[in-house]
Amino acid sequence: MLSKNTVKYIQSLQQKKLRDSYQCFIAEGPKLVTELLKGGLFTCQEIYALPQWIQLLPAGMVEIYGSRIFEVEDFELEKISGQSTPNQVLAIFKQKQADPSPDFKNKISLVLDEIQDPGNLGTIIRIADWFGIQNIICSLHTTELYNPKVVQSSMASLGRVNVIYCDLAAFLAMQKIKKYATVLAGTPLQKCTSVKEGFIVIGNEAKGIKEDLIALCDEKITISRIGQAESLNAAVATGIILHHLVHA
Amino acid sequence: MLSKNTVKYIQSLQQKKLRDSYQCFIAEGPKLVTELLKGGLFTCQEIYALPQWIQLLPAGMVEIYGSRIFEVEDFELEKISGQSTPNQVLAIFKQKQADPSPDFKNKISLVLDEIQDPGNLGTIIRIADWFGIQNIICSLHTTELYNPKVVQSSMASLGRVNVIYCDLAAFLAMQKIKKYATVLAGTPLQKCTSVKEGFIVIGNEAKGIKEDLIALCDEKITISRIGQAESLNAAVATGIILHHLVHA
Repeated sequence: MLSKNTVKYIQSLQQKKLRDSYQCFIAEGPKLVTELLKGGLFTCQEIYALPQWIQLLPAGMVEIYGSRIFEVEDFELEKISGQSTPNQVLAIFKQKQADPSPDFKNKISLVLDEIQDPGNLGTIIRIADWFGIQNIICSLHTTELYNPKVVQSSMASLGRVNVIYCDLAAFLAMQKIKKYATVLAGTPLQKCTSVKEGFIVIGNEAKGIKEDLIALCDEKITISRIGQAESLNAAVATGIILHHLVHA
Repeated sequence: MLSKNTVKYIQSLQQKKLRDSYQCFIAEGPKLVTELLKGGLFTCQEIYALPQWIQLLPAGMVEIYGSRIFEVEDFELEKISGQSTPNQVLAIFKQKQADPSPDFKNKISLVLDEIQDPGNLGTIIRIADWFGIQNIICSLHTTELYNPKVVQSSMASLGRVNVIYCDLAAFLAMQKIKKYATVLAGTPLQKCTSVKEGFIVIGNEAKGIKEDLIALCDEKITISRIGQAESLNAAVATGIILHHLVHA
């Protein structure tokens, strides 16, 4: 039986302020939790799970995590879960300190200017992980990395990509590596040759990239439109651009 | 003041069964509703809006839609809205009959095998519209087109793309145009040349394309993975594939 204080603590991690102060975050569901545990990507603090999840845990994992696993009943999981349909297990992990100054040479890095939708940020992290991108640099107003919706949609890619938050104008001004702004009017992506080193800047869902940041970029690229849709989803645009620049 | 029956009727349109029987659907928010009205993409039945939305409506639109606009107060909009934060206006439109046998010659069409997430389906419709794809053929178990989440995420592209639901095995078996299955092990997309005519088959988010449908396809294509992410989001994959095959 979970104590009132435990329930309160776990519920409090739905709020950014409390996640910041405890330096923890929540992950839910058998697939995500198991992958995070297997990869050892984050330090696990506690696991709250239904008996059916615990029974299926491989012996090796029970040895490592056994003392941190608490069996709960359905109604308890419902209380602590942030999901509309709780799914067997909720785990609390320690947040990781990002590497603030990784080496950007000979690789492509992503730069995000105020991505607001947590689902988009999570999906972009997963796309980055698919294409072997190691670093994402986010503006200070980009949605928070450990928001439960970011965590859920990034899958375990969250632990494999280094995500830094900083002032983008200052950051880009300092970089000597080529910077590509993705905008509505630029060089059609299909005419771009492959890129081995560079920063790809992706803008806010509604407003695009801020003018002062575009001015700091060396090249403008565009996904050519053939039909009539007003815009492409930011994560979809990121996937299209990365696939082309990595493989062209 | 909205009558109890009106509130009940609008709320009932959140359910597929009732949408089917009334042949209507709901769209919310100034941007989406205005674009659907401007484009004349669907027949509008009623508009429930806050005074600030009505005041900003261009004169031409007031003339056409005036008699169907009902001014509501915040608390009423909250009652009828399906959104967590209702946004000025909710409109009810008539569903459109899809063209069941369009001409597939000299064009690319999308085939969706059980896309389950409404947000994914809406985003895929928007991507199709961006790349000038006119037809999407969905398996019978693909999420319903007029689900409010599909409507919201498709933006107004919903009205510009012809979406058909049918038995995919029977459909694909009948087609003489080339069929491309997107799978985990096939020809790397970057090696494919551009496609002027064909069906691109996209699979379910978790299970991919069903084996019997893959067997009906002429070619298998793959988005090459460089990093470690387990999968790509279905809409992101659709965007990457369409961009390459249209522009290569």
